[in-house]
Amino acid sequence: MTRLLIKQGTFVTIDENLPEFQGWLAVENGKIAAMGEGEAPQEETARATETVDGKGLLFMPGLVNTHGHAAMTLLRGMADDLVLQDWLQNHMWPTEAKFTGDDVYWGSALAAVEMIKSGTTTFVDMYDHSRRVAEMTEASGLRASLARGVIGLCSEEEQKAKLEDAIRFAREWHGQADDRIRVMISPHAPYTCPPDFILKFVEAARELNVPLHTHMSETLAEVEQNVRDYGCRPVEHLDRLGVFGGPALVAHAVHLNDEEIALLAERKVAVSHNPISNLKLASGVARVPDLLKAGVTVSLGTDGAASNNNLDLFQEMTTAALLHKGVSGDPTAVPATEALRMATLYGARSIGLEGVVGQLKVGFKADLIAVNIAQAHFVPRTDYVSHLVYSARGSDVVHVWVDGKQLLRDGRPTTLDEEKIMAEAESRYRRLRA
Amino acid sequence: MTRLLIKQGTFVTIDENLPEFQGWLAVENGKIAAMGEGEAPQEETARATETVDGKGLLFMPGLVNTHGHAAMTLLRGMADDLVLQDWLQNHMWPTEAKFTGDDVYWGSALAAVEMIKSGTTTFVDMYDHSRRVAEMTEASGLRASLARGVIGLCSEEEQKAKLEDAIRFAREWHGQADDRIRVMISPHAPYTCPPDFILKFVEAARELNVPLHTHMSETLAEVEQNVRDYGCRPVEHLDRLGVFGGPALVAHAVHLNDEEIALLAERKVAVSHNPISNLKLASGVARVPDLLKAGVTVSLGTDGAASNNNLDLFQEMTTAALLHKGVSGDPTAVPATEALRMATLYGARSIGLEGVVGQLKVGFKADLIAVNIAQAHFVPRTDYVSHLVYSARGSDVVHVWVDGKQLLRDGRPTTLDEEKIMAEAESRYRRLRA
Repeated sequence: MTRLLIKQGTFVTIDENLPEFQGWLAVENGKIAAMGEGEAPQEETARATETVDGKGLLFMPGLVNTHGHAAMTLLRGMADDLVLQDWLQNHMWPTEAKFTGDDVYWGSALAAVEMIKSGTTTFVDMYDHSRRVAEMTEASGLRASLARGVIGLCSEEEQKAKLEDAIRFAREWHGQADDRIRVMISPHAPYTCPPDFILKFVEAARELNVPLHTHMSETLAEVEQNVRDYGCRPVEHLDRLGVFGGPALVAHAVHLNDEEIALLAERKVAVSHNPISNLKLASGVARVPDLLKAGVTVSLGTDGAASNNNLDLFQEMTTAALLHKGVSGDPTAVPATEALRMATLYGARSIGLEGVVGQLKVGFKADLIAVNIAQAHFVPRTDYVSHLVYSARGSDVVHVWVDGKQLLRDGRPTTLDEEKIMAEAESRYRRLRA
Repeated sequence: MTRLLIKQGTFVTIDENLPEFQGWLAVENGKIAAMGEGEAPQEETARATETVDGKGLLFMPGLVNTHGHAAMTLLRGMADDLVLQDWLQNHMWPTEAKFTGDDVYWGSALAAVEMIKSGTTTFVDMYDHSRRVAEMTEASGLRASLARGVIGLCSEEEQKAKLEDAIRFAREWHGQADDRIRVMISPHAPYTCPPDFILKFVEAARELNVPLHTHMSETLAEVEQNVRDYGCRPVEHLDRLGVFGGPALVAHAVHLNDEEIALLAERKVAVSHNPISNLKLASGVARVPDLLKAGVTVSLGTDGAASNNNLDLFQEMTTAALLHKGVSGDPTAVPATEALRMATLYGARSIGLEGVVGQLKVGFKADLIAVNIAQAHFVPRTDYVSHLVYSARGSDVVHVWVDGKQLLRDGRPTTLDEEKIMAEAESRYRRLRA
């Protein structure tokens, strides 16, 4: 049995009982086995089969990216500065239609390299060819909540085939890779899936006992269309269809009124806030301070790399903390502590992993990262939470562990071949554009 | 005579005639001596006394940070999530009042390390103990436009002494360090300097033939106070006092009406846009798309590290490009090309250095940086300008040259002792807070 000992480190736990300490932490059997302040006890030093010198490093829970489309890294920078519907319908969807399973594998692998290098240990993915995303996840060592995203703008026959594929995917992959992979059921959005089709996803999710994940109220146009087509706004629409009758995670939720916020809170619907994507596509600014105040679990997502254009969740955290202050005029909105929880604890909570990951606590999965704080932008040592939110960048991450297994060592991925993945991604993009 | 040859690189020039090319660039006598597409000619290879292999690197003009208070790095993370006036009056100013010249030297040196490591080659600074900032600038090899910032909330005698100090500083340092150091005259703000005091700065600036630099219309409260105290808004107020009668750079300019934007354009007043500081202090969102449309030169500034909380101008560029899309609802607002110009060409223009730095052109000062694009977040190679604005981070910078002298080599500063500076900054912060 191996036992990893991290000694003389700075720990930011996201645990209210012991938020921050200088000390040591031991990992065994994929879990945090023990931790404490000060020097590691003699018996810990003796039991350790591997030791990490924590001097100059800050250890914290790995980040949780709660919305994305990993394979869209292949489209990074292909079409910027366009309106959402034009961008989707004329650029993204036609190119994505050409994606093969291998394209999705390598595009997702490129995303995995980026995520691991910038401190994300768990990611949510909604995409086609989801088996290939799952295979990549298994190989990479990352933790993920995956969904075979379904767009229902097609014949009934095709709809049926897609739904069956999503259900089969859930049956095959939920709980695989030592439970690192969980599955969600995912109708793409109320504007791309007719109501009776959404009902079938709800039924499937209940039967499989997995959460639902969908895009919702990303743009004002989409909300208005929902009112025209179905006589109500998306929140009421999805609620009527039973989407919120069990665990549900909605991405974006930019355009909400007070009643909708109250309903999301009542139904315990989790919201994945994607500030960078919402800004870049000019979708608007989500009412995050109001959502948090109402008790809604708000976490952070990068969305796909084509509307971001990277997968650095530190940047998402910084943007969330800054944006809502400036837009609301309240400099206390989304304080650093809350932004940090959104990227960790609330992320875990939003996908059913609270108590498993998202905090550094004994008995939790050893999903943790080390940030190099021996750099100018972390000086002086005033407030580490402030530094992590307002000053740090994903590139400050040097080590990453998931389930106690090291995925990044001194800034280099250990499970993925970065050079090969970059070359594959480049040539696949060339072919898609040919 | 040394001659540096960069070969097989990717160059983003910010020059409309040849925006991007694969090729080579030669530096001699502190200037860009020659450049061209493809393989470097035989005679260039023969003349080179030093060669840099540009494979996997993107070369571009060094970034220009047009507003900041470098020594405020010492206060990073000391007081976050507060209202501007509370933050300034109860936290920043009382601590800054204790700053010695040595504190300013080491705090500025910490800023210089951060700026060099993240690709800034020219910075604007407004602070007390400006001689020490100048000494640090000279030692660091950076280019700067420095001002002895003056707050006039004091006796007439003290006002006089401060103004004389600012004038003496200008006479001593303008054009020093091989002209790397330029000086501006800087009354802090209309709300901290009475009108007759501002008049004296205007007079001094004209006599010395240097630009004026001041904070303006950062908060709504400040605009309202100006109206109460002087019967007009800050733009009209400063215009009446003659501040805009010669070269002038105003920081922030968040709260402007249409008439004020037209007047700034007419008077050719340059605006330093500080999006991160404005968001963090909840000052608001400047009307950047309107300013650009009116023909105002808008550049980017980090402001001090206490309201940012780092000095990464790449992050400022990303934030500027994203923020104005989301807030205006127009996804074409501040496109990537414009954001990149704001951080380079427009920065140079705003401090009188257009034609000297801010572009890669033969005859320009060799102020350039190399970005490591052989990384996952720069794949695929779709659009380098998009990647620089939306995907890059300051930490991607690996080499920096100013006046042809290398200040950063493989990510390590060559002119500054990073370890010593971090230790000095840390101990000085401890003393200030004791």
